[in-house]
Amino acid sequence: MNDQWIPARVGDAVTDVDTPALILDLERFEANLARLTGAVRGRRVRVRPHAKSHKCVEIARRQITAGAIGICCQKTSEAEPFLAGGIADVLITNEVVGDRKTLQLAQLAARYPSAKVGVCVDDPRSVTQLAHACEQTHAHIEVYIELDVGHNRAGVTDVGAVVAVGRAIAAHASLVLRGLHAYFGNAQHVRSIAQRRQAIAAATGVAQSAQRALIAAGLKCDVITGAGTGTFMLEATSGVYTEIQPGSYVMMDIDYAKNEQELSWPAFEQSLMILTTVMSRRKDAQSDRATLDAGLKSFSTDSGPALPAFAGWQVRGVSDEHTVLERNGTGPDLLLGDKPLLIPGHIDPTVNLHDWIVAVRGDRVEAVWPIDARGAIF
Amino acid sequence: MNDQWIPARVGDAVTDVDTPALILDLERFEANLARLTGAVRGRRVRVRPHAKSHKCVEIARRQITAGAIGICCQKTSEAEPFLAGGIADVLITNEVVGDRKTLQLAQLAARYPSAKVGVCVDDPRSVTQLAHACEQTHAHIEVYIELDVGHNRAGVTDVGAVVAVGRAIAAHASLVLRGLHAYFGNAQHVRSIAQRRQAIAAATGVAQSAQRALIAAGLKCDVITGAGTGTFMLEATSGVYTEIQPGSYVMMDIDYAKNEQELSWPAFEQSLMILTTVMSRRKDAQSDRATLDAGLKSFSTDSGPALPAFAGWQVRGVSDEHTVLERNGTGPDLLLGDKPLLIPGHIDPTVNLHDWIVAVRGDRVEAVWPIDARGAIF
Repeated sequence: MNDQWIPARVGDAVTDVDTPALILDLERFEANLARLTGAVRGRRVRVRPHAKSHKCVEIARRQITAGAIGICCQKTSEAEPFLAGGIADVLITNEVVGDRKTLQLAQLAARYPSAKVGVCVDDPRSVTQLAHACEQTHAHIEVYIELDVGHNRAGVTDVGAVVAVGRAIAAHASLVLRGLHAYFGNAQHVRSIAQRRQAIAAATGVAQSAQRALIAAGLKCDVITGAGTGTFMLEATSGVYTEIQPGSYVMMDIDYAKNEQELSWPAFEQSLMILTTVMSRRKDAQSDRATLDAGLKSFSTDSGPALPAFAGWQVRGVSDEHTVLERNGTGPDLLLGDKPLLIPGHIDPTVNLHDWIVAVRGDRVEAVWPIDARGAIF
Repeated sequence: MNDQWIPARVGDAVTDVDTPALILDLERFEANLARLTGAVRGRRVRVRPHAKSHKCVEIARRQITAGAIGICCQKTSEAEPFLAGGIADVLITNEVVGDRKTLQLAQLAARYPSAKVGVCVDDPRSVTQLAHACEQTHAHIEVYIELDVGHNRAGVTDVGAVVAVGRAIAAHASLVLRGLHAYFGNAQHVRSIAQRRQAIAAATGVAQSAQRALIAAGLKCDVITGAGTGTFMLEATSGVYTEIQPGSYVMMDIDYAKNEQELSWPAFEQSLMILTTVMSRRKDAQSDRATLDAGLKSFSTDSGPALPAFAGWQVRGVSDEHTVLERNGTGPDLLLGDKPLLIPGHIDPTVNLHDWIVAVRGDRVEAVWPIDARGAIF
């Protein structure tokens, strides 16, 4: 994307921002940062927010100012802009497999020798590839064994395999075994607190057994990292997890807002919305309909479409560049050229569709931040 | 995205391409170009492919070499790289609403005075905005009245409104009334030929009535443009449509492949796939599973997930950066580090997630094309 197409300038009125655009309400965003800091204050757990949600160096910096020790990423190419932007501790919570990809990772770590760069493994063969790449590039990488604690995606499943992978890591001077990655992704979106509690209790048990096995084998396991926005209060109070990785909490989405919450847990607010324009309006005997200029290329629909941030309208259709709203109750009218806000269904793949976050305070643009790692899939 | 992260170089083996990557099979792609050219040969209909599918200037150039008169886009920012890349006839098949957006469009048209730039309108107020912007910038824009022929999204619905909008356009010297945009989007994905035939017959009737009304009012209506990959043979043989806009035909997707086809219609082949890497592999008493390094940030799921391009495996889960495949039949084994291909469910929002198309012939990379208009949502 051409830099000419920046949707706003500092000082613009929100109503003058070009659409579709991601609008970040700074008051809510700052309150969300403070809520997380407050929720873990006094607990023996470090915060390493997941930057795959926002992909924005400026947001990572503010998370670190609010007390985070570093960030998580999902890909080597995603880690790069954060390291270049001065984030000195980046953990790739994912496997990096194959000679080309392990070399990219090692080269990245070698370019930032004063930063900590971490990655997950779940197979001894990947450990060998990784060590070879580090030796070629004189890089040092922190390694976490990914443990499948119920997510059924990647990760080792039994204690014997954990020890085997741990031994493989410890055999290489270029690799530093830090501990376990024990993220229970599916549990994040389970609505009932009781079920989430049960899931994380089971995950904690698995992680603890694996940790004991590593230590019994004479291996290190100082860190147990995991957790997301849906469960982190459970991991934070588990006595076993030493690090939590919530990502969506700073911006939120419709899906996470559906989770049942304990009263004592932080109540994050929706801080990120999508500004749109009414590009067609029909009001006749058959229909009362507004068509917006944002569709599948401005928000993801894997957890349902983006929904109006106001009453009286429902989504009737989404196509590549359009969302059709139909009036179904009382609420504000929408006129041609009006700029209604939508709430994203799933924040991570929605942010990934944009180049800029327009940060606003009240009705004015305070900053425009690049989404530095947008599209960083390698 | 940093240019460092280009997934391939000319001459690379396909198995060395970094993943996830869009792989375009040039033999199938060229066959699809030729199939469309052959299908309309001798018919009184021009081809204006929709570039919102591929967003790639090089593909547009090849479509024009194959006989297209120009291309369609959906947004002003999407039109820009095509005009900059020498495509001299670009129609934005969409409304552009508001002072800021109409000024952007007029400025773009003014920068390419020898090119034809077109846009759709469905409201007299937008005509006034557009004319004002053209007068400010000394631009000339070709204008099409968008007609709702059944798609229920934007567009005018009755003949009286068509004439009113037509008169508004004709009142401004900077605007050239070209005709009608009569695209029936929903009909593209109707599986039965009979139902598609019925839908396009109805659309043709509506378009013809509108054309007659414009001409009766002393207004011009030289062009009736519309149609997509699912229906274009019907519009092409309608005797009323003068221009067709198929987009997906050059690359195809799972959704379009489900359409029932007449034997006499061109049978487009899947030319675009997603190359992935097996980043985790589990084979034990409980599961036989391969986790791939491509998810919601590498393909859209609005028409279902991307599916394996080979037998014996089914998709069990998709998350931001992962697809979990489970073995459910006989077929090739998948090993850690293998690079299986997936077929996208819906091509347009999938291409929009990538920066590069890796064009291959046989097992070698022949070219790497930038997806110039990726993320061009303004």
